[in-house]
Amino acid sequence: MMKQPIAVADILTAVRTRHPLVHNITNYVVMNSTANALLALGASPIMAHALEEVEELVSISGALAINIGTLSKLWIEAMFKAGIHARKKHIPVILDPVGAGASRLRTQTACELVKQVRPTIVRGNASEILALGADVGGARGVDAQHTVAQAHVAAVTLARTWGMTVAVTGAEDFVTDGRREARIRNGHPLMARVTGTGCMATAVTGAFAAVEPDAFQAAVAALVVLGLAGEWAAQRAQHPGSYGIALLDGLDAVTSESVRTGAKFEVETVGLEQL
Amino acid sequence: MMKQPIAVADILTAVRTRHPLVHNITNYVVMNSTANALLALGASPIMAHALEEVEELVSISGALAINIGTLSKLWIEAMFKAGIHARKKHIPVILDPVGAGASRLRTQTACELVKQVRPTIVRGNASEILALGADVGGARGVDAQHTVAQAHVAAVTLARTWGMTVAVTGAEDFVTDGRREARIRNGHPLMARVTGTGCMATAVTGAFAAVEPDAFQAAVAALVVLGLAGEWAAQRAQHPGSYGIALLDGLDAVTSESVRTGAKFEVETVGLEQL
Amino acid sequence: MMKQPIAVADILTAVRTRHPLVHNITNYVVMNSTANALLALGASPIMAHALEEVEELVSISGALAINIGTLSKLWIEAMFKAGIHARKKHIPVILDPVGAGASRLRTQTACELVKQVRPTIVRGNASEILALGADVGGARGVDAQHTVAQAHVAAVTLARTWGMTVAVTGAEDFVTDGRREARIRNGHPLMARVTGTGCMATAVTGAFAAVEPDAFQAAVAALVVLGLAGEWAAQRAQHPGSYGIALLDGLDAVTSESVRTGAKFEVETVGLEQL
Repeated sequence: MMKQPIAVADILTAVRTRHPLVHNITNYVVMNSTANALLALGASPIMAHALEEVEELVSISGALAINIGTLSKLWIEAMFKAGIHARKKHIPVILDPVGAGASRLRTQTACELVKQVRPTIVRGNASEILALGADVGGARGVDAQHTVAQAHVAAVTLARTWGMTVAVTGAEDFVTDGRREARIRNGHPLMARVTGTGCMATAVTGAFAAVEPDAFQAAVAALVVLGLAGEWAAQRAQHPGSYGIALLDGLDAVTSESVRTGAKFEVETVGLEQL
Repeated sequence: MMKQPIAVADILTAVRTRHPLVHNITNYVVMNSTANALLALGASPIMAHALEEVEELVSISGALAINIGTLSKLWIEAMFKAGIHARKKHIPVILDPVGAGASRLRTQTACELVKQVRPTIVRGNASEILALGADVGGARGVDAQHTVAQAHVAAVTLARTWGMTVAVTGAEDFVTDGRREARIRNGHPLMARVTGTGCMATAVTGAFAAVEPDAFQAAVAALVVLGLAGEWAAQRAQHPGSYGIALLDGLDAVTSESVRTGAKFEVETVGLEQL
Repeated sequence: MMKQPIAVADILTAVRTRHPLVHNITNYVVMNSTANALLALGASPIMAHALEEVEELVSISGALAINIGTLSKLWIEAMFKAGIHARKKHIPVILDPVGAGASRLRTQTACELVKQVRPTIVRGNASEILALGADVGGARGVDAQHTVAQAHVAAVTLARTWGMTVAVTGAEDFVTDGRREARIRNGHPLMARVTGTGCMATAVTGAFAAVEPDAFQAAVAALVVLGLAGEWAAQRAQHPGSYGIALLDGLDAVTSESVRTGAKFEVETVGLEQL
């Protein structure tokens, strides 16, 4: 185990210097807050779901974030079309399997997206990752709430099966590419009282993946920065409404210096035989 | 007439203890603020409208809130499907007939939802309740703005005709189940300067109805608590933008104690012959 | 060139006195913030896109704002239907060609809306106006970012070709009806860090056009007031999250007096031979 083995501050600086365009096919609830999070961070958002334009728009983007929070038939088609095109163009794809496990439509759509699109990174909560993991022989029982620790095997199995990075967010975040594992302890409990902070994590991960080719490092850096923004916000707001606004402010306020002093994470390399 | 005949503080505590899941099929404008209001209150939101999953999701929810603010064909189908399934499963349904009276599509959709779904509670402004009431022989002329008092007969008639609770919100709120009538004087004029506070009232009523089987009491308690949040917010913000955020904060900040000292409402039982 | 040749304060007062209803067919990202901006200003928003009701609702509105930010087939149909009906009823139409130039779907939809609806006012950024202008023989190359100055010829050509007012917003705003030209220097750089301030400008322009028959004057007044709100906000918030909320507050806080002392714009009448 090493201390700060990932240059989070440098990746953040790259986002702020290069202003990557992140194409989002996301849910209605978080479109506004997601766009504002990307702008506050220094990235640039575009939201588009029309079958006629998703390929064109993903082609000019640095990353594609797919979020299944408010699914419907036409949107699912657009997710597959954009996702497959992005991969063909070597543009990183981040999948947020919102509610996988809660309905068959969501579980099946998320599992099919994993198989057909092969996302670069999947970011979900423990129950969602368990729902995806069940599909590849991991744990089952997604109808209850789970801890990040419970999703450990599912995450690693998914990462190894599909050759992708899996990020499980919760009180402590866990990121793995099947070979490396990171645990991140930045953040604040009030983040769970604001709708769409998970979706925000996904979009922010997209911005980091647009500038950092190592998806594992990009995901860790994104979650550290969002966690630090959450801590910054907690010093300024005590209730969920103003906390959500302060969280956006925090994405702008986090500096390289605060990353260096405040980041709380460890990375370890695990043998393939472990598990 | 009795003073504080409804245990508002206890129902609020039940919401905060049991964190009921409220399934919303609602309009695009308020999805984010509604989800945030439910989270701030201590409840849990889910937004979903796909025909393929609404029955599954409503089955795991404590209440269903249907809001017709940005209608379209597929969404209307989902509202009927989810609403009918909820009633079959004895899950309370709250209907918000946004804009009933303003277009035939909205008036007809709202009236049909009342007939086919038989919502537990309808929550609207005076003009909307008058539009629904016109359908059962109440007042007409919904093209102008109306006072809550003007909607009194329509509300009682609707409540008695369909066996439901009707909540009319405005400067003073009015709630009736056809037998009992409540008048609530909590709230603040700035609430009308923020989009979706009516929709928020509907969703919050859903959270209360999920934990309180007496729909009339649930509706009164919800409007008292939202009104108190509005008063709390008015002490912290003078303009509509920051007021909307403070209103969310208020839903978190209202305590059992502030309910006991601040609630302003009366309930009376009315004879069926009156009207 | 004259100083303050447009009675911005009087037009603002008319908006606040008459509370015009603005019908928006707009994108999912900004529906909430646009509705809140109109309410904060003193106008009244309605969002509706169903083919079955757009004609009815536009008929009772003071203006129609069409925004192509998150297009899809059914919404495009609604935009044409509502737009054509509005013009037939002499209701001003404001078009926001979001992302014109970024995808063929957007460029074509925006150009066709200009031709078939003949909007009263088009409000876009420089790249979007250049994309529309390319269609009538103006500049090309919309794949890069452009300055407002670069869009000058395209704006004037569009205004003269279609007999409409064109507003190009950026660091300095430019408005023309082909005969008059205004340059507005109100505003603040943080406005570009909040999603949907352009869309907000479009909706606010709709409110002003609802009460001021001279579309050129309405557009100038709207951009001055929004710019002043942006300056007001910059004195109260330093980061994008809280700045976006303060911007809404600013729309409520701007007074006739602050318009008179703070408005920074010039108007000149240009000969038709110039260009």
